[in-house]
Amino acid sequence: MVFDAIGDAGHEQVSYFTDPETGLRAIVAIHDTTLGPSLGGTRILDYDSEEAALEDVLRLSQAMTYKAAAADLPLGGGKAVILGDPDEVRTEATLEAYGRAVDRLGGRYITSVDINSSAAEMDVVARRTDHVVGASDGLENPSGVTAHGVFCGIRACVDHVYGEDDLEGLEVVVQGLGKVGRSLAEELLEAGAAVTVSDVDREATEAFAAEHGADTVAPDVVYEQPCDVFAPCAIGGILNDETIPTLECEIVAGAANNVLAERRHAEALHEREILYAPDYVINAGGLVTVAKDHFGGSYEEAYAEAEAIEGRLRGMIERADDEGTTVLEAAEAYAKDRIAGADGESRSVPRP
Amino acid sequence: MVFDAIGDAGHEQVSYFTDPETGLRAIVAIHDTTLGPSLGGTRILDYDSEEAALEDVLRLSQAMTYKAAAADLPLGGGKAVILGDPDEVRTEATLEAYGRAVDRLGGRYITSVDINSSAAEMDVVARRTDHVVGASDGLENPSGVTAHGVFCGIRACVDHVYGEDDLEGLEVVVQGLGKVGRSLAEELLEAGAAVTVSDVDREATEAFAAEHGADTVAPDVVYEQPCDVFAPCAIGGILNDETIPTLECEIVAGAANNVLAERRHAEALHEREILYAPDYVINAGGLVTVAKDHFGGSYEEAYAEAEAIEGRLRGMIERADDEGTTVLEAAEAYAKDRIAGADGESRSVPRP
Repeated sequence: MVFDAIGDAGHEQVSYFTDPETGLRAIVAIHDTTLGPSLGGTRILDYDSEEAALEDVLRLSQAMTYKAAAADLPLGGGKAVILGDPDEVRTEATLEAYGRAVDRLGGRYITSVDINSSAAEMDVVARRTDHVVGASDGLENPSGVTAHGVFCGIRACVDHVYGEDDLEGLEVVVQGLGKVGRSLAEELLEAGAAVTVSDVDREATEAFAAEHGADTVAPDVVYEQPCDVFAPCAIGGILNDETIPTLECEIVAGAANNVLAERRHAEALHEREILYAPDYVINAGGLVTVAKDHFGGSYEEAYAEAEAIEGRLRGMIERADDEGTTVLEAAEAYAKDRIAGADGESRSVPRP
Repeated sequence: MVFDAIGDAGHEQVSYFTDPETGLRAIVAIHDTTLGPSLGGTRILDYDSEEAALEDVLRLSQAMTYKAAAADLPLGGGKAVILGDPDEVRTEATLEAYGRAVDRLGGRYITSVDINSSAAEMDVVARRTDHVVGASDGLENPSGVTAHGVFCGIRACVDHVYGEDDLEGLEVVVQGLGKVGRSLAEELLEAGAAVTVSDVDREATEAFAAEHGADTVAPDVVYEQPCDVFAPCAIGGILNDETIPTLECEIVAGAANNVLAERRHAEALHEREILYAPDYVINAGGLVTVAKDHFGGSYEEAYAEAEAIEGRLRGMIERADDEGTTVLEAAEAYAKDRIAGADGESRSVPRP
């Protein structure tokens, strides 16, 4: 049952919402609001079971707590799941019922896009609640901010490994040419790096390489491509027992979420003396942008704030060195310190 | 799991709260807030399982929706359970953590006393939230209002059965001499009724009888005592397969909660042509008092409002006659009509 599933993670509040009229079934998990209202996307999935949905929302909301804390944002961790076939669930009536559910949390949870929910869905949700970011009237191009944050994070890693943060001539492999990967590759090329790109869409890869003067590598051999920095910007789970032994890089630093198949793979990279920049630390530019959207601010301000990732990541790398841990552990320690250091108890209802 | 347990009852929101520091484990069920913020007590019990706790809180919160709606109150139905040994749970730290949890619902749930939680516990809860009634600074003596409401309800039943509402000479058996039973017996005696009292505390029974000129009957034969009105004012579940065939009364109308062992026992009473005044309709004076406490008002106002129970119950009895149903079904229909007739959707956050 629920309390057992929560266990030591100690979620503040896990709320089940139903709406007989539309058949809505949603779970909103608020992990921790010590630093501010919880924020996290709404995942719409036809889970195998209610247990699987609960497990997912608990895990993801806890991850959001650390992500927000490690990004120095005044936000806590939350996440939501709507159970059901996305094609059946994404009706206006159901999404409005979900908007009412989010509103009933009074601002303790701010929702956003996730798997099977995009700006179009958030537009409907926003009819019933103000506690939503990522709707189509939000700040444009969070991908650009995310890419810029990753770029700055790479600089911190390079400085640590090579003793200088000049990227001229640095060999970087960018996996994935989605919005963020493309934007990152361009910024690296502008800085003088030698970029090799790889995407399952071979045509797009060749076109990008031709246009920007980049090299290419086939997706099936991307991990073993010798380089200074491997920048995963595609799907998650790609650093695993199979790929890690084949890596020929000094640094792993990219934009992809949940890039480690399992937590222990941070240790595996550490043992191979590959510096791993924790995904949620280096890709926090997207979260910085939606926070800016929510609290009020411009795209330019978000872009500038993403640059702070460089200094924060540098600090975490040094802490890991000092304490003999992985950078992932240092990042978590940083996040926990921030939460523990917050004065007083969490706000029951966030400031407007 | 949770959605299955909710089923067709369609609870708006079921929230699990944990607090790692104190070990708090609480479930708050908000069944329906169409008519106003949900209100219901906090039950502290060492349940056999999490499933049992969930089942209890779901059932009780739904009952509160109908109770509040049938009492014409601007309130919805809610209930809370704190899981654990009451002696271990009722520490200041845990109750304060629970107060924070209630506060996080932003006023959508108003808590109060229940099994193992009294004014002393609510005083601690109230340190952390305003959304509590039944603390020691509340309106005094809700029992007096409850008894008065039951008295008025008995008049409605008597009028229906005997064609006049004069209680002079009416034979009433009052089961239970707690605060409410005692107060009801006194009011009936003042109105000229012939009252027979019964309590497991034989000494208190004899003392009350001697002081007020009442008769007594032993607890084990109370059901078969011939009378006009049997008024259960003690524990719940006493109208069951065993007791109903032995009843020698025309009317069952008392203050006890959950007086029917099962819902079908309303039908069993109906078949015996015994008029049963639904417990939650006739004992609503207590709820009227805490609502007055919450929304602001005096004890005298609550006392006067409890008199409306007479007219409402009369209407339900007539509806049951017209539609050929039990009064319990008519009461539910009345409550559902009120909810369905409320304009627009439920308020996300109640008016302050």
